[in-house]
Amino acid sequence: MTAHQYPLLPTFADVASAAERLAPVAVRTPLLAVPKLDALTGGRIFVKPEPLQRTGSFKFRGAYNRISRIDAVDRAGGVVACSSGNHAQGVAAAATLLGMPSVIVMPKDAPALKKARTIAFGGEVIEYDRVTEDREAIALDIGQRRGAVYVPPYDDFHIIAGQGTVGLEIAEDLARLGLAPDYVLANASGGGLVSGIALAVKERFPHAHVLTAEPAGFDDHARSFRVGHRERNEQASGSFCDALLAPTPGKLTFEISSKLVGEGVVANDEEVARAVAFAFEELKIVVEPGGAVGLAAVLAGRLDLRGKTAAIVLSGGNVEAATFTQCLQIAGRA
Amino acid sequence: MTAHQYPLLPTFADVASAAERLAPVAVRTPLLAVPKLDALTGGRIFVKPEPLQRTGSFKFRGAYNRISRIDAVDRAGGVVACSSGNHAQGVAAAATLLGMPSVIVMPKDAPALKKARTIAFGGEVIEYDRVTEDREAIALDIGQRRGAVYVPPYDDFHIIAGQGTVGLEIAEDLARLGLAPDYVLANASGGGLVSGIALAVKERFPHAHVLTAEPAGFDDHARSFRVGHRERNEQASGSFCDALLAPTPGKLTFEISSKLVGEGVVANDEEVARAVAFAFEELKIVVEPGGAVGLAAVLAGRLDLRGKTAAIVLSGGNVEAATFTQCLQIAGRA
Repeated sequence: MTAHQYPLLPTFADVASAAERLAPVAVRTPLLAVPKLDALTGGRIFVKPEPLQRTGSFKFRGAYNRISRIDAVDRAGGVVACSSGNHAQGVAAAATLLGMPSVIVMPKDAPALKKARTIAFGGEVIEYDRVTEDREAIALDIGQRRGAVYVPPYDDFHIIAGQGTVGLEIAEDLARLGLAPDYVLANASGGGLVSGIALAVKERFPHAHVLTAEPAGFDDHARSFRVGHRERNEQASGSFCDALLAPTPGKLTFEISSKLVGEGVVANDEEVARAVAFAFEELKIVVEPGGAVGLAAVLAGRLDLRGKTAAIVLSGGNVEAATFTQCLQIAGRA
Repeated sequence: MTAHQYPLLPTFADVASAAERLAPVAVRTPLLAVPKLDALTGGRIFVKPEPLQRTGSFKFRGAYNRISRIDAVDRAGGVVACSSGNHAQGVAAAATLLGMPSVIVMPKDAPALKKARTIAFGGEVIEYDRVTEDREAIALDIGQRRGAVYVPPYDDFHIIAGQGTVGLEIAEDLARLGLAPDYVLANASGGGLVSGIALAVKERFPHAHVLTAEPAGFDDHARSFRVGHRERNEQASGSFCDALLAPTPGKLTFEISSKLVGEGVVANDEEVARAVAFAFEELKIVVEPGGAVGLAAVLAGRLDLRGKTAAIVLSGGNVEAATFTQCLQIAGRA
């Protein structure tokens, strides 16, 4: 495995550089006003719909930024990544666009839709057993045998900078409307998205609060912020937010988020299901459970947004029909 | 009822004027690239997702443009409209934004979701029986008693100009990408949307083909184009595209569309259901059956798009959970 070392943390300039690189290939997702949320909260609330992003989640941004920086001499062996779904699709699509092969190591119990889509985007999927096998070892082995460059899911200089373009676009679009955000909410697992967003948003709006949104029982960021070091989740599964199950904040991401984020909100599965149904009915956007946690926390009234301006990131929309219908049922819609 | 007479047909300048008026209140929906459709068709295919528009369909554009032009002296009595759903929501929301009351005459069998949303947007709903009652007479009576201005669903100068802003945005966004559209597909019922789009698109791209997309059995535009005068549909119900059941093209709209459109494609209910499921899975956008007919026609291979650039308008997303789930089932997804 070829390891590029970027000892420094990314900065705002790296996010801006990622934005330039992504401009020709990524969707510049709109920032949507949601009058219904304004009425519910008494604030001015926007959503940033990353389900509309290429591959159906923000993960394409970081993956493309990272893979596009691989030196020409290291490209022949392609890339290898571990992911239960959204990073897998982002890496596969980005590698294909850049003319490189990709191998994705996915757990056997990952959603079938995410596996099928990873293959459709040009990835080769290798399955492993979450309980008995070590995915990092499998990826390392593939990397060595094939000369493939490992693309980490979040704890990487260029991945963080790429995800940060979500925050840059939010900041630009709010500035264009003459608004400054009081809150920006980003769903967090390893923390690549929220760290990148914080780099961009805090540069433009130093007084904005950037918050993590996490499923109940998987609130490793919120707990880590409180104690000042990286805490682990007790369980590794048991939420239907399959996109948000990283056991602990990343090392690099936490170096950023512990300084620039520092606060988090939580929502339980039922609240998340209601948020998925709200997005269906009011936003007309398909959001997966793990992509709807920030929205769920707002709908559950976990933040006092009266008179405030807030942007909520909907981070992904790769949800199977059965899970989607289940959410509508839980919310009393079907 | 106060009747404003605009004997002339709207032109490109009226669409541009509508765009200025709508800028502070409407969502400028993005033009989304769809690599999966590129692969399926061999062309370069974009979708224009009006489910993301305020009220969940393009209808807000025309309604706001029309209502905002009512003279101050005529505003006190509010507005009255007839609609089975999307125009109802557009009129209610636009009137509320402009500080005016609204009464919407809706059929008893309109989707419950559309009735509930019309009320939520501030409209007063009066129900009628499609078989035994005449909705125009009811609206006329309300208009006279309350001094309410009638807002037609499509056959109106400012309604057509407002809907045309969809086409203006498509033209601007394609021009920015250095592309010229070969085809623009718009779902058609009374024809306000497709006529307005044609005014805008043909001004910028005279060689573009603007096409209607209609449900099988409700292809009054396609048949009218062929014979050169307005034909009627044989049935008034029987498609699950509840948004597209106008019996015949409008008089004004057909004056425009017979010159600038002149061609149409058709899709059946099963093809439409598959398109709704495709939008769920690939676009992550909630589209109602009547909003997915153009996409259905493209997915069914009804146009040869090899080497062509095309924009497909997804016109609305106000679909009940049960109907949505039914579409996913028909497409084998749930």
